[in-house]
Amino acid sequence: MNDDVLPVAGIYLASAAAGIRYRDRDDLVLMALAEGSTAAAVFTRNAFCAAPVTVARQHLEKTSPRYLLINSGNANAGTGDAGMAASYETCRLIAAATGVAMNQVLPFSTGVIGEDLPVDPFASAIPGLLSSLREDSWQQAAAAIMTTDTVPKLASRSFELDGKTVTVTGMCKGSGMIRPDMATMLAFVATDARIPQTELQHVLETAVGPSFNAITVDGDTSTNDACVLMASGASDVEVADKASDAGQAFQQAVNDVCMRLARSIVLDGEGATKLVEIVVEEAASENQARDVAYTVAHSPLVKTALFASDPNWGRILAAVGRAGVEDLDIDRVRIWLDDVCIVSQGGRDAGYTEEAGQAVMEQPTLTIRIALGTGDAVTRILTCDLSFDYVKINAEYRT
Amino acid sequence: MNDDVLPVAGIYLASAAAGIRYRDRDDLVLMALAEGSTAAAVFTRNAFCAAPVTVARQHLEKTSPRYLLINSGNANAGTGDAGMAASYETCRLIAAATGVAMNQVLPFSTGVIGEDLPVDPFASAIPGLLSSLREDSWQQAAAAIMTTDTVPKLASRSFELDGKTVTVTGMCKGSGMIRPDMATMLAFVATDARIPQTELQHVLETAVGPSFNAITVDGDTSTNDACVLMASGASDVEVADKASDAGQAFQQAVNDVCMRLARSIVLDGEGATKLVEIVVEEAASENQARDVAYTVAHSPLVKTALFASDPNWGRILAAVGRAGVEDLDIDRVRIWLDDVCIVSQGGRDAGYTEEAGQAVMEQPTLTIRIALGTGDAVTRILTCDLSFDYVKINAEYRT
Repeated sequence: MNDDVLPVAGIYLASAAAGIRYRDRDDLVLMALAEGSTAAAVFTRNAFCAAPVTVARQHLEKTSPRYLLINSGNANAGTGDAGMAASYETCRLIAAATGVAMNQVLPFSTGVIGEDLPVDPFASAIPGLLSSLREDSWQQAAAAIMTTDTVPKLASRSFELDGKTVTVTGMCKGSGMIRPDMATMLAFVATDARIPQTELQHVLETAVGPSFNAITVDGDTSTNDACVLMASGASDVEVADKASDAGQAFQQAVNDVCMRLARSIVLDGEGATKLVEIVVEEAASENQARDVAYTVAHSPLVKTALFASDPNWGRILAAVGRAGVEDLDIDRVRIWLDDVCIVSQGGRDAGYTEEAGQAVMEQPTLTIRIALGTGDAVTRILTCDLSFDYVKINAEYRT
Repeated sequence: MNDDVLPVAGIYLASAAAGIRYRDRDDLVLMALAEGSTAAAVFTRNAFCAAPVTVARQHLEKTSPRYLLINSGNANAGTGDAGMAASYETCRLIAAATGVAMNQVLPFSTGVIGEDLPVDPFASAIPGLLSSLREDSWQQAAAAIMTTDTVPKLASRSFELDGKTVTVTGMCKGSGMIRPDMATMLAFVATDARIPQTELQHVLETAVGPSFNAITVDGDTSTNDACVLMASGASDVEVADKASDAGQAFQQAVNDVCMRLARSIVLDGEGATKLVEIVVEEAASENQARDVAYTVAHSPLVKTALFASDPNWGRILAAVGRAGVEDLDIDRVRIWLDDVCIVSQGGRDAGYTEEAGQAVMEQPTLTIRIALGTGDAVTRILTCDLSFDYVKINAEYRT
């Protein structure tokens, strides 16, 4: 799907090597939205959210954005008043150069926390960015927003409505500090459909639930998570009613793009060698299902067993057992690795063989399915393993 | 303190190489308690608790134990009905050989989860164990209960009362799957004081709160955690009233031994290179303080920064921010590495220098102190870093 990134009419991108932190690579992206575009967004719930998150939230409350300014290498988080001032200043620079209002510019930052964001590189790069905005620069932009990511992450979808083509294209970045809570690291999804802001926000919130909000690499919710959905209207296809065919087709396309992008983040999780879906079913509530799923997903012992391709199912069972499920009847709990039942009636399933478990564990992609026997709620999340390289990447990130 | 392990009159130990899993090392320990001894215990809250935990709980409800039988190498957890039968059978073997009731024997197991516990090695080893029980075998016993531990863990304390000496000596094991919830992996503490069972249970529960229940290596609560406190009465010193001088001196001695043992577990945490105390103060409640402390302690990004001796305080701040503290005013949060203030007023403290932070981080032992500004509750926990060796140990444990 990354091979076929469709441009979105009315959405323009440019990237530049501004030298904010990295050398010899692009680290600044400008996105421009055609006049009349709408935009929706969800942000991190981390109490220590970064300055650009606060500024973007404020600006979105007031008006529709015309520009998104995204830098990598510096998160502008934990930077206090100076960070807020720097973030406002970057917006002001765009406003001054283009004539839009300052609050029509949304800032986004990702990278190291706690270092002052230098504004001079923005000032130097902005004229070049403005003169190079193009509809077909998604690939370069997706590369420019990377930090510890090893690959750019893109997804694209189109569908026909009333003889016209609607396109949904998105990019995102994220590899570590990944347990999004209402949004992923940074994701930007655009469409040429025309859709009012309130409807757009609804579509976005529907799409992020099972995608960006159902992935975890290391359980660390970032200070900078943000996901933006933009609609230029350039296709002349109106999506006003979510219950209509157009509304449903559009929601499906956005869901698909978000799911693909979310999956690409876990696939590129820091040091990850395996993509693991965790399905918890027969739960008393969705919250209970999520508690169990995340407890298993975050268990360092489960994660290292996955890295070792070791069907050490006892660690999964121990994680389920400490997930705080009230009145858990362990005799009713069943656990599968793909279709191989490993646990039933409080212990190893009678039909289980180490060979069968081993065969599943050696795959690059597998599913851990857990039936709790306490109800009928279900959840699915995506995670990855914990490898030497995760430690290496995160022990060396700043040095 | 490990150099000076005091025997406890009326408490006898023996160990043997039974070949349960390991070769050429002791893996089975028998402890015998003089007639008239009392015992108290706390156990794991993991719903998938191991068969021996269930059996030990049952037996303790009925009578005072005369023998504790502890094996390493096999946890007898996740083993269903067969595991229960094996655990009962090991108790029956001791009862048959000694004439005590079967429920006067408490079984404990630690090691791999989900493999059937072989009973034959117990049967073969028990006669030798019974004939070699001695008061001064604590060192050998502490070595025999080790799994991934790299050192035996012992602590000892004595004090004078009414011209007589009271001794408290304990041993424990634990290195990974460490986030005790009501008890540590396995800990056995004995005294020659005379103290009724109800009082003894109270002393134990008081002691485990700030010790075994305030440590975490990897957040994984084991299926087999247990902590037993035994009192032989052989010193002829009666401790009946917790408010008396004797009661307070005894509580203090048990607290000290438990704290030393708990600390030794974190020091020997799998792959650990640093011992880190996390103090959360000015919290609205002890639960809130504990939530923040454990969120920071379990953050893989904080743990890998500690391993790298990298004062990447932004990761600490991000973990505090995602800990779910309601109405957190980030401007009131302050964070210190030892005495170096790193965060105040929502960002890096004005007086902070990287050199000062680096100097603290390079120490083998350090304190992360977090003031939330939401109240006056305080908690302290101990944890360690996340290193290459943690991954190595846990990716290779079964192979």
